[in-house]
Amino acid sequence: MADSKAALEQIKRGTDEVLLETELEQRLKQAGSLRIKAGFDPTAPDLHLGHTVLINKLRQFQELGHEVLFLIGDFTGMIGDPTGKSSTRPPLTRDEVIDNAKTYEQQIFKILDPEKTLVMFNSSWMNEMDVADLIALAARHTVARMLERDDFSKRYKSGQPIAIHEFLYPLIQGYDSVAMKADVELGGTDQKFNLLVGRQMQEAYGQEPQVVITMPILEGLDGVQKMSKSLNNYIGISEAADEQFGKIMSISDDLMWRYFELLSFRPMQEIEGFKKDIAAGKNPRDIKFLLAEEIVARFHDAPAAIKAQENFIAR
Amino acid sequence: MADSKAALEQIKRGTDEVLLETELEQRLKQAGSLRIKAGFDPTAPDLHLGHTVLINKLRQFQELGHEVLFLIGDFTGMIGDPTGKSSTRPPLTRDEVIDNAKTYEQQIFKILDPEKTLVMFNSSWMNEMDVADLIALAARHTVARMLERDDFSKRYKSGQPIAIHEFLYPLIQGYDSVAMKADVELGGTDQKFNLLVGRQMQEAYGQEPQVVITMPILEGLDGVQKMSKSLNNYIGISEAADEQFGKIMSISDDLMWRYFELLSFRPMQEIEGFKKDIAAGKNPRDIKFLLAEEIVARFHDAPAAIKAQENFIAR
Repeated sequence: MADSKAALEQIKRGTDEVLLETELEQRLKQAGSLRIKAGFDPTAPDLHLGHTVLINKLRQFQELGHEVLFLIGDFTGMIGDPTGKSSTRPPLTRDEVIDNAKTYEQQIFKILDPEKTLVMFNSSWMNEMDVADLIALAARHTVARMLERDDFSKRYKSGQPIAIHEFLYPLIQGYDSVAMKADVELGGTDQKFNLLVGRQMQEAYGQEPQVVITMPILEGLDGVQKMSKSLNNYIGISEAADEQFGKIMSISDDLMWRYFELLSFRPMQEIEGFKKDIAAGKNPRDIKFLLAEEIVARFHDAPAAIKAQENFIAR
Repeated sequence: MADSKAALEQIKRGTDEVLLETELEQRLKQAGSLRIKAGFDPTAPDLHLGHTVLINKLRQFQELGHEVLFLIGDFTGMIGDPTGKSSTRPPLTRDEVIDNAKTYEQQIFKILDPEKTLVMFNSSWMNEMDVADLIALAARHTVARMLERDDFSKRYKSGQPIAIHEFLYPLIQGYDSVAMKADVELGGTDQKFNLLVGRQMQEAYGQEPQVVITMPILEGLDGVQKMSKSLNNYIGISEAADEQFGKIMSISDDLMWRYFELLSFRPMQEIEGFKKDIAAGKNPRDIKFLLAEEIVARFHDAPAAIKAQENFIAR
């Protein structure tokens, strides 16, 4: 187990918020590995670098000796969206969920250590729950606090309907933390409310509340909007080496530092050194090469990264 | 089956609202008996005349050839109030619920015909439901519409907490109507919102929506506040004959007409005749005797009612 002060500094890198930092510090001081939870939809996505911000943070925890609990939200996935308001979430079959989980594994194990990763499905405890249990869970939270969630609040005020089962999802996500005995939960900044419900649920069920870590949403290649497939400003982790290399080289010098912070595994000290090099006259392009090489090597291999750089220079 | 027009007039007597009257008319025209639902807490109360306003209406339906579904809400009763905010609703055991149901039967069968009464327990379908079913049920209603309920709206606006499971109860009550295939549901005026949720749930589950009938809350002996044990302005259905007789004789001449309408089984025409008698000089006390006799005979017997009147006159 690494020195807890140093570990804390590493973990804080690139995070948006750590709630509460004092609690994290305390848990890091205790002997033994922590249980680090992150939840994912059971839909099979093409992961891009935006997704890896969170996965990189999970990897960092693994390197510090902790265990990652990679949760597939198959229970809610199999329910789908019963109101039929969203055509994007049709109910998934058990087989589809398992196939999708395998797709996840193929992609995330390019970053995570499979030995320190436990893939879990929330159906395994939610299917054990009965209606009375769910009602008791719902009794643990109030309507007013749920309506404080940003998107709920906006929809309520603007007269957009909120179906009542939507209030149950954050509670189930929170209960997942209870069932998983999570010490830490990671999510995007947009997940902050739900992550905090996890703390409340753990307290309600007599557990120490988990530490919540929110990760920023990565900007796309344009440096302005969030990285997304639909905005076509993304780098997919399954893309060809040349493609990835070229795209990274296309980002602005400013954005490069953001990508170094959130995507590179180099120590921040080394990155500070790069900044000094540039201030002293070094060509930013040479530093960007290092970033592009690191990323391409991660999703392909080192020779592929070198080849991609040669191709880039030659073109 | 009675003539449907006449039946409609009888049913409307003393009601607060019939929603929708045209639907009730239509159902009464169809051959066959209707399923008339009324739900009761599984707590064992001492019933008073206030409670019988609704039970009398159920009896009227029975006299018109329909079937009464007397629902004991044992599912929610066994859950109790998990927030612990209300000490008045501790969870009940299965045995307590059955004992209480027997107590109900002893009391209500002084008015209802046991042959045309089906006692049901909502645990019989709620225990079959799984968590996914309950979530699907919750998807059938919106937060905004639930917050329109008068008490929720007041609590929300004044910052009083509403636990999320409280939003599930009206949905479960509504689902009871689906499971029971109710044609009509009766309740106090304070139940109107929940009764209407029953209509929505039946529509959502592909059934004809039930007709909703709300009954007024009976005033107590003072003629002002609602009849209630805690206000000591009540007549219990298990009280001694002399006690009941004397209490009825104590009400005002104005209140007597209200009691005739809501508590007597005499046709309204006959009651109109009594009004004319009094206008023509008859002593109101003699008419009140008729009301007192009828009520006492219902909960005791005819000789007891005559004896009570003699005792009243002699005292």
